[in-house]
Amino acid sequence: MLTASLLADDSRIVRVHAGAKLFVQGGKSNMMFVLLSGQARILVNDIEVERLAIGDPVGELALIDYEPHSATVEAITECKFAGVDERTFYRLVAGTPEFALDLMRTLARRLRNTDKML
Amino acid sequence: MLTASLLADDSRIVRVHAGAKLFVQGGKSNMMFVLLSGQARILVNDIEVERLAIGDPVGELALIDYEPHSATVEAITECKFAGVDERTFYRLVAGTPEFALDLMRTLARRLRNTDKML
Repeated sequence: MLTASLLADDSRIVRVHAGAKLFVQGGKSNMMFVLLSGQARILVNDIEVERLAIGDPVGELALIDYEPHSATVEAITECKFAGVDERTFYRLVAGTPEFALDLMRTLARRLRNTDKML
Repeated sequence: MLTASLLADDSRIVRVHAGAKLFVQGGKSNMMFVLLSGQARILVNDIEVERLAIGDPVGELALIDYEPHSATVEAITECKFAGVDERTFYRLVAGTPEFALDLMRTLARRLRNTDKML
């Protein structure tokens, strides 16, 4: 649902080459991204904390609270991401409860994972 | 906004005495709670990870992903919480985007905080 609704607009596709970074920890941006194809991972302080699955969102924290990225996202193989700008993000949250629930489920999973690492 | 919309229904108020626990890590429940008054804290593996502010939600992870509670919530002083059951939760997410955004902001803040502890 999440991925499909974003794929409707091809103009926001971002390609990242193997080994390159989509964004870096401490950096700022006003977009979140959803992995459409390829393999990518999330790094916190250069330590891998998660391998992304297709459809997983990244960069959503920066859109939610306007703070710098808490993690780096690196492509392992050539990757394609769908970019979601702030306006689209708020439109989706307001109009598509499943989008908000999907995001909350991802945040919940990541919070549980990091809680386990404490 | 969040607190006000919940306060409308007084029947779901939960009182927790000083030193008592609202719920415990590893336990299961199908409600989340919002702190209305008093002082409370979140413990992970008996370590305090957060002091709650009035209006802060707890127990939302268990409602989002149906897993056991990842943390314990303990009242420091006599506390009053508003309980939100699953049905009300989904109704609020679907009908009140600000409720979903409030929750996401809290999840984002907690995720950033635990990322810093890694």
